[in-house]
Amino acid sequence: MSLPVSVLEPLATIGILGGGQLGRMLALAAARLGFKCHVFDPGPDSPAFDVVHRITCADYTDAQALDRFAADVDIVTYEFENVPAETATFLAARVPVLPDPRVLATIQDRLAEKSFVAALRIPTAPYAAVDAPRQLADALDRIGRPAVLKTRRFGYDGKGQATIREADDPEAAWRAVGGQPCILESFVAFEREVSVIAARTREGAAECFDVIENEHRDHILKVSRVPATLSAATALAAQRIAETIAEKFAYVGVLAVEMFVLSDGDLLVNEMAPRVHNSGHWTLDGASISQFEQHIRAIAGWPLGKPVRRGRVEMINLIGSEVENYRSWLTVPDAAVHLYGKTAVRPGRKMGHVTRVFVDERQIPERAGAQTRSGACQSHDPAGRDKA
Amino acid sequence: MSLPVSVLEPLATIGILGGGQLGRMLALAAARLGFKCHVFDPGPDSPAFDVVHRITCADYTDAQALDRFAADVDIVTYEFENVPAETATFLAARVPVLPDPRVLATIQDRLAEKSFVAALRIPTAPYAAVDAPRQLADALDRIGRPAVLKTRRFGYDGKGQATIREADDPEAAWRAVGGQPCILESFVAFEREVSVIAARTREGAAECFDVIENEHRDHILKVSRVPATLSAATALAAQRIAETIAEKFAYVGVLAVEMFVLSDGDLLVNEMAPRVHNSGHWTLDGASISQFEQHIRAIAGWPLGKPVRRGRVEMINLIGSEVENYRSWLTVPDAAVHLYGKTAVRPGRKMGHVTRVFVDERQIPERAGAQTRSGACQSHDPAGRDKA
Repeated sequence: MSLPVSVLEPLATIGILGGGQLGRMLALAAARLGFKCHVFDPGPDSPAFDVVHRITCADYTDAQALDRFAADVDIVTYEFENVPAETATFLAARVPVLPDPRVLATIQDRLAEKSFVAALRIPTAPYAAVDAPRQLADALDRIGRPAVLKTRRFGYDGKGQATIREADDPEAAWRAVGGQPCILESFVAFEREVSVIAARTREGAAECFDVIENEHRDHILKVSRVPATLSAATALAAQRIAETIAEKFAYVGVLAVEMFVLSDGDLLVNEMAPRVHNSGHWTLDGASISQFEQHIRAIAGWPLGKPVRRGRVEMINLIGSEVENYRSWLTVPDAAVHLYGKTAVRPGRKMGHVTRVFVDERQIPERAGAQTRSGACQSHDPAGRDKA
Repeated sequence: MSLPVSVLEPLATIGILGGGQLGRMLALAAARLGFKCHVFDPGPDSPAFDVVHRITCADYTDAQALDRFAADVDIVTYEFENVPAETATFLAARVPVLPDPRVLATIQDRLAEKSFVAALRIPTAPYAAVDAPRQLADALDRIGRPAVLKTRRFGYDGKGQATIREADDPEAAWRAVGGQPCILESFVAFEREVSVIAARTREGAAECFDVIENEHRDHILKVSRVPATLSAATALAAQRIAETIAEKFAYVGVLAVEMFVLSDGDLLVNEMAPRVHNSGHWTLDGASISQFEQHIRAIAGWPLGKPVRRGRVEMINLIGSEVENYRSWLTVPDAAVHLYGKTAVRPGRKMGHVTRVFVDERQIPERAGAQTRSGACQSHDPAGRDKA
């Protein structure tokens, strides 16, 4: 499936599957390095369409459009892991696709994803496969309650998840998720949620950004803070986990790994995204190189930059109508405002973000968007498979 | 000539006259704030065409194309001061143009530019108008030799300048510049060349970046360093000069003012650019807000950011074939590489730049591209009117 990949020269055209804000920021980073971009997205209002050399607005299954797209670009990457695997496979027969489509296939299936991680002896929450309702009772016996039943594929936007507490009927949960192959996961008592953004080149060189601490609101990432409140040893362990996963995938590009931190400092891998990630947006302003440029460099066959953090950093998502308040951020001295050029404001939609860089690390930022943190609950994030 | 200008909302379309690297970087900054851009340039390979929502490739005198352009955009700005004044005037009757076209008209004429500055009691090199050859002898008597005869308009790319030393025949200089209205300027014994990038809003709020020290090679900017080696008082005086000029122009946007620093710390204004400026490229990586975003904010009616410099900064232009060496810069830990996506490498063409940020100010960067500096010569920069 893998075509030989040459090192890109400036002026080469990078094809991006998906035209949301991640595609937009990837395209802006590519432009800075002298590349052209061609974005493929079925949505006519895709934000990335406004900042690129060429666009294709077509369905991901439109073979003619995909053929033309493949012929126009030197390499394909994606901002979005729910691109149909057939699309990636179709393209990979015509033009190099990075990260490799088999990574996409693994991460699109929660069971394959968890199994991949477990095979590396990296801890995850206890889980069990549930292919049919009759397996559910056994799985519950092994995992215990409360537990969460999640569809293996395309479980995002709050769909495909059901919690099973003591009094709940497992059969009802099975029906609620649509009666399809599932994974049953245990609740985890975690202290904080963190993520690691790792980049890896074709030659196997890797660079991680500092570990990020994430706070969700209504199951959507609201605030990321860097550095995460972790011991140096735990932070290093988190980065090593991300690098190990990237290495075992023979990954090329930026990979995001979300983890839970337990009270004893142990780390459990929650899920992965084979792409740039919302929790890495702070790197645009808060680091010497951004996650977007790292991804472009990696897939282009260029050396990675060595990220240096510019201070204590906080990234605040502007979600839904919060974006209407963007002007108040413009005059905050240490704030950088990013708006995604989306035409419609909808509840829960990521419209922009703000980065605050506190060069003096001792300065403690006010906790914008902070909320009471419950000490022991798993984030059964319905948007976890969304473009986080 | 001035139409009422409303505050732009995100998703508004900004029209940019000129599609070179400055237009490209303006468009990237506008995209970050959620704006769309429409670039107008006669050159089909314009680098800014690759990063915008819409392009017009037409002559600056094509009234139909200008009409369509005006109808598509909410505001017009320019990356390039040699846009014909008629073009700006034509557009200004249809859509707000910022900075105001009368600023363009003043700066396009070296005599009007110098007179404007002199009327503010801001020092410049001694100069005299020379409209006809018979005025040249008188002017030389007043200014002294050596002096430089420069055409008043469109004197760039080394054209339209002739030096008159002791033994030279003034009539030959007059013929050399094409026998058109000129300005005669005295040589100035300067210690260093500096520039100030100022931004001003519609309401008159102004912000200056730190003063920049510039080093030219073959009459093209090669290296900019920030902060300039100046006393605090001289640095402040330089910023006040730029702010005064911006205020008297009722300027909206980013204005660059180039100055000579004399041995006693006195400042002479050399020339101005009504736009973002090569010597301000360091702000993309070395400051909390870039000159490009300041310009977009100012013309949009948005508040300016307060620029905070991230350390000692050096910006190195990649000129002509130097760009072929870009890969060696990718692995320099503190270097940010910018490539402009230009299709043809030509001698003297600005192909990209590199920014180095030294967070520890005591660290003294190696002097990349440094050359012996002659102590007492005026920079008769043939590229001074080019897109510097």
